[in-house]
Amino acid sequence: MISVGQDERMRDTPYLVVDDQLLEQNLAAMASHAARLGVALRPHAKTHKTPEIAHRQLAHSAVGLTVATVGEAEVFADAGVGDLFIGYPIWAAGPRADRLNALAARVRLRVGADSIGGVRMLAAAVRAGHVDAAPLAIAVEVDSGHHRSGIAPGEAAKVAAAALDSGLLVDGVFTFPGHSYAVGGATSAAGDEAAALRIARDALTAAGIPCPVVSGGSTPSARAADGGVLTELRPGVYLFGDAQQWELGTIEPTTIALTARATVVSRRDGVAVVDAGSKILGADRAVYASGYGRLLDHPDARITALSEHHATVTFPAGDVVPPLGAVLRVVPNHVCNAVNLVDQLVVHRAGAEVGVWAIGARGRNT
Amino acid sequence: MISVGQDERMRDTPYLVVDDQLLEQNLAAMASHAARLGVALRPHAKTHKTPEIAHRQLAHSAVGLTVATVGEAEVFADAGVGDLFIGYPIWAAGPRADRLNALAARVRLRVGADSIGGVRMLAAAVRAGHVDAAPLAIAVEVDSGHHRSGIAPGEAAKVAAAALDSGLLVDGVFTFPGHSYAVGGATSAAGDEAAALRIARDALTAAGIPCPVVSGGSTPSARAADGGVLTELRPGVYLFGDAQQWELGTIEPTTIALTARATVVSRRDGVAVVDAGSKILGADRAVYASGYGRLLDHPDARITALSEHHATVTFPAGDVVPPLGAVLRVVPNHVCNAVNLVDQLVVHRAGAEVGVWAIGARGRNT
Repeated sequence: MISVGQDERMRDTPYLVVDDQLLEQNLAAMASHAARLGVALRPHAKTHKTPEIAHRQLAHSAVGLTVATVGEAEVFADAGVGDLFIGYPIWAAGPRADRLNALAARVRLRVGADSIGGVRMLAAAVRAGHVDAAPLAIAVEVDSGHHRSGIAPGEAAKVAAAALDSGLLVDGVFTFPGHSYAVGGATSAAGDEAAALRIARDALTAAGIPCPVVSGGSTPSARAADGGVLTELRPGVYLFGDAQQWELGTIEPTTIALTARATVVSRRDGVAVVDAGSKILGADRAVYASGYGRLLDHPDARITALSEHHATVTFPAGDVVPPLGAVLRVVPNHVCNAVNLVDQLVVHRAGAEVGVWAIGARGRNT
Repeated sequence: MISVGQDERMRDTPYLVVDDQLLEQNLAAMASHAARLGVALRPHAKTHKTPEIAHRQLAHSAVGLTVATVGEAEVFADAGVGDLFIGYPIWAAGPRADRLNALAARVRLRVGADSIGGVRMLAAAVRAGHVDAAPLAIAVEVDSGHHRSGIAPGEAAKVAAAALDSGLLVDGVFTFPGHSYAVGGATSAAGDEAAALRIARDALTAAGIPCPVVSGGSTPSARAADGGVLTELRPGVYLFGDAQQWELGTIEPTTIALTARATVVSRRDGVAVVDAGSKILGADRAVYASGYGRLLDHPDARITALSEHHATVTFPAGDVVPPLGAVLRVVPNHVCNAVNLVDQLVVHRAGAEVGVWAIGARGRNT
């Protein structure tokens, strides 16, 4: 429980608060890390979906943004971000084809691809749109061990060649080492990432295809990223932190910049039920998670059950359970999904509310 | 994979589709069931958050709606629903107190309470609002075995008496038998529900407090609800169905009225990756779930991994994996969280798009 000031009593819980000073500190730390590695920083904006934060990232030396969907790209292009990478194997059918062309005409646009079929759809979309002046660039996604999307690294040149044959540009290769989301997995995932990207880059080079961009990076693996291979890093969660990063050991809880404010609405021996449930925290619970989120000011408590509007918080024997009406700071397990559940972030500085940011790309799934 | 008509190619995936005829069928079936039991039907609108659907429920003999938050109640009051139950132990602090008074002045409003402290806050809010003409009614929440919120059934009269002493009305008692969400758990949870409600009702009666409302019900337990004790049923998910209900055996998959449309964006041997992830399906995965959702037209496939914009679908050996670009129908695990992630529902009748409904209460967490 934190002391609840006048500001906090002016808003009904639950809501999400960003600590502006911790946000700045996290942005600066990752910018320094990328500079030390000698790689470009292209943060994944799916985490915050917020134009104000995008501009903070650019001010902290980001070369552009990564996004997951065309809809996110549209929001950030509207906000004046001029260099965007849709790090996703876009299938350019239906209205999406026209939307991609419209985007490519106004920003520097790179799109992911992991198949010859996907590349051909992109090329057909560009041809149909007659956007001669703005050729679309692709990066080939390779699988570095997460086994989600991405072609085998050794096959990357086939997709790149198909892109060139179709009249697209090729920026290079990328991967998402998502298997870094495992206890003790970050360093080995970073090694897998570097190995896969090296194979893919060398495959393109051997085929005579320039590969200026070698892009990797997740928040857990960023610290161990190989600056000898990577030219670009795409972490997302680092600016806020969340309970997953806390429990993975990627961050210290003192650096967590986003929390939900929640009120104790029911209590009994050893248990408080607060009004932040899966409709503001998200329902994520990784296999390594100790519960459905954490309490920033009660590190020994656990969220042992989660409904849509209830989190059941179990306190260790002997702990004082906060009283009815107390406002607690809850750390979501996975901050990207929490942010996508609300329309705004309340900004605090030194504990006082200083503003509100609209989450402009909230819900932009397509 | 379904055959993709002209309508489907006009929209970019992922998006949520409601089958209007299955929706009507599900609404009618639950209305008949409640009538047979001789109980009032007060569906939980947190599942759909959609005014058009609320009016369908009222047309199918619902006496009013249940909601989870003041914000949901405001949306449905604006839409003309005149009888609302906020089935949640509201803590009436801050702006919420005024909002409750404003609601009570224009609709018949019942609010949940499970503590004397909560009741006193509600009473203070009403006194501060000077709403003499519109007394607020409470129902006492009791714990029937889910161990979330709710006082012990035998203690219900204490909360009810505190409400009467504070000048509030008392409608009766309610419970949510959430432990019905377990394989084979529905019938025993319905028995626990009836037993707890009987104890609570009898406790009020013994204290001389009338108890006209005895309210229970969840979709899994509804079929086994005890019409000899309950006067009111509050199922939520029944109108759409979802993969949880399918896997619990509560519904047949042929009755599922809501699915996400998702495109295959990446594939390999035995695996298709589609573009519906946790930002449209929700991240729910109950302990009994076989995966992160199901495919309506591929019942033997499993969603073995879920990211924000990727579902990894694993097909049984020998099955034909749908091609790149195929549009599949994905059934979310927990439909209440899926609906809350988007702004609209696309309505289909006989496979053709006939309209779009705005999800008016999406994100109304407070």
